[in-house]
Amino acid sequence: MDLALNEAWKSQILTYPNPAVGCAVIKAESELLCVEAHKKVGGPHAEVLALQSAYFKLTDDKTILSLTSSHEIHNYLLKNHNGCFTDCTLFVTLEPCAHEGKTPSCANLISKLGVKRVVIASADESQKAKGGREIVANTGTKVEFSSLEKKGDGLLSPFLKWSEERFVFFKWAQRLDGTVDGGVISSKESRELVHKMRDVCDLIVVGGETVRADRPTLDARLCDGKAPDVLIVSRTKEFDKNIPLFNVQNRKVMIEENFDRLKDYNCILIEGGSNMFELSKNHVDYHLCFVSPKSGGKIRFNKNDDHFDILHVEKISDDILMWMKLKG
Amino acid sequence: MDLALNEAWKSQILTYPNPAVGCAVIKAESELLCVEAHKKVGGPHAEVLALQSAYFKLTDDKTILSLTSSHEIHNYLLKNHNGCFTDCTLFVTLEPCAHEGKTPSCANLISKLGVKRVVIASADESQKAKGGREIVANTGTKVEFSSLEKKGDGLLSPFLKWSEERFVFFKWAQRLDGTVDGGVISSKESRELVHKMRDVCDLIVVGGETVRADRPTLDARLCDGKAPDVLIVSRTKEFDKNIPLFNVQNRKVMIEENFDRLKDYNCILIEGGSNMFELSKNHVDYHLCFVSPKSGGKIRFNKNDDHFDILHVEKISDDILMWMKLKG
Repeated sequence: MDLALNEAWKSQILTYPNPAVGCAVIKAESELLCVEAHKKVGGPHAEVLALQSAYFKLTDDKTILSLTSSHEIHNYLLKNHNGCFTDCTLFVTLEPCAHEGKTPSCANLISKLGVKRVVIASADESQKAKGGREIVANTGTKVEFSSLEKKGDGLLSPFLKWSEERFVFFKWAQRLDGTVDGGVISSKESRELVHKMRDVCDLIVVGGETVRADRPTLDARLCDGKAPDVLIVSRTKEFDKNIPLFNVQNRKVMIEENFDRLKDYNCILIEGGSNMFELSKNHVDYHLCFVSPKSGGKIRFNKNDDHFDILHVEKISDDILMWMKLKG
Repeated sequence: MDLALNEAWKSQILTYPNPAVGCAVIKAESELLCVEAHKKVGGPHAEVLALQSAYFKLTDDKTILSLTSSHEIHNYLLKNHNGCFTDCTLFVTLEPCAHEGKTPSCANLISKLGVKRVVIASADESQKAKGGREIVANTGTKVEFSSLEKKGDGLLSPFLKWSEERFVFFKWAQRLDGTVDGGVISSKESRELVHKMRDVCDLIVVGGETVRADRPTLDARLCDGKAPDVLIVSRTKEFDKNIPLFNVQNRKVMIEENFDRLKDYNCILIEGGSNMFELSKNHVDYHLCFVSPKSGGKIRFNKNDDHFDILHVEKISDDILMWMKLKG
């Protein structure tokens, strides 16, 4: 389950408006066949990717690897599984979905494949998708809940937030010594990941100071993605309109004194320095920090007394990234 | 191989004077049976622990789980394997040892079990243990080298250093904001790990300033371990002998102006602040940094311009730890 959770964290935000979900398939209670994660809305769910990969490993039938859509994989598995999953357990970070949306129901698929056991980290209580565990259990598959429920809920929380109201995360990049001044800090891969997140977000929030000092574009050019709307939080409304962010097509730029505008958006990325960090604290659900293993700057990101819980850490190229939650 | 490397990093230093080694067993080219690592000198090697765990998963024979010594496990596997490993591949971070030492030869064991394939990250070129791949290959097991050789060498390097001359690592603990002042920083688990490292190291090096200011004990009480010798690097030789580190039994304390004494030891832990970090740079092989996800201190660890390569990162309780190497 831990491997499934880690794999899913790698696609956190990128699956918006879907949840980040991971799935591992285990044979004979102890042999790990594969770990997969849902990558992008419209693409196959984690369970489908994992069953696809597991099917290939169990049968050596390469045909399934050429299939890319959920419907194709579902249909192929239903026709050809031939009982190959009867000794398999699925560890899935979120209860398999009961409903037919852009893709067919995972619970339905699992129930028809004769999977032995499904272990779930977080229950799905959404009106839309809930009921999966009953569907799966109805055909004799054992359904259990994992002891890693808390970790599963940390992974799922952004989805619950943006589904109900909004999810807000604050991103910054710093050196190991805590400094943030003096040129580009993160590796190319870290910056590309931020652009992929911008591509799916609805809104970027940034402070007036940052806009004046850095003259940013705040688009998703590193992944040829869309540029989300921008909210500049600033008392003074005058800006040099040659600053690139004002000249990106198909984007709205708002300059306002407070965060009230957040209510119009669902998935919101705040980028900024210490001041914005302080100002936005009460609006932020998760903090995402990129740490580059360097020292040498002069200005520290944050001089206040804050404590975080680390939800997930991973190495990304030369840097690390940490998903964190401020302690109350 | 990546899982085997990560598992081995968790026991880095703790295996001294043995190398940190990890081993994963894969069935039918794609099913992960287990990942194990060598834990402590005298204990079973990674390959033996992995074959023990894999044997149980393949045969359901619980008897093997009650065996703890290498000799017992070797003998049991040789008598009872019954060809169960013929479809298995071992991913091992270091070439299996050819020699009989405190434990029997791993290469010998593998060669007699009819393992299908062994994939190796780092070759063993030591006079003592080399030749394992030939022994394994002689009985028809395929031997290949992994593309993760560079990562394997990063894991193995401490062993090569302390075997030939000495391995020196510098450890510090900081907050996410780079600060180091104001009381205990790391979690209990992080501090316990440092004590386990002290338990196996030959020497702790510390600066005179730190001794006067922190009045440390520098023992391994959190794991009931032994207290290594201490070298205090200091121009002035006068210290209050009531400082606890002077009153630990079976330990030598030296007060010297330079690092020449390092030549008498093989596995050396330097603990200190910015000054010691600067002073010791040319003597240090790896840097080990514990980061606690907090901010609020006043004094930054390091104000110079340094760049590291991250060799390994992992979460340890509330903190993270990073093994790093200074870039040249």
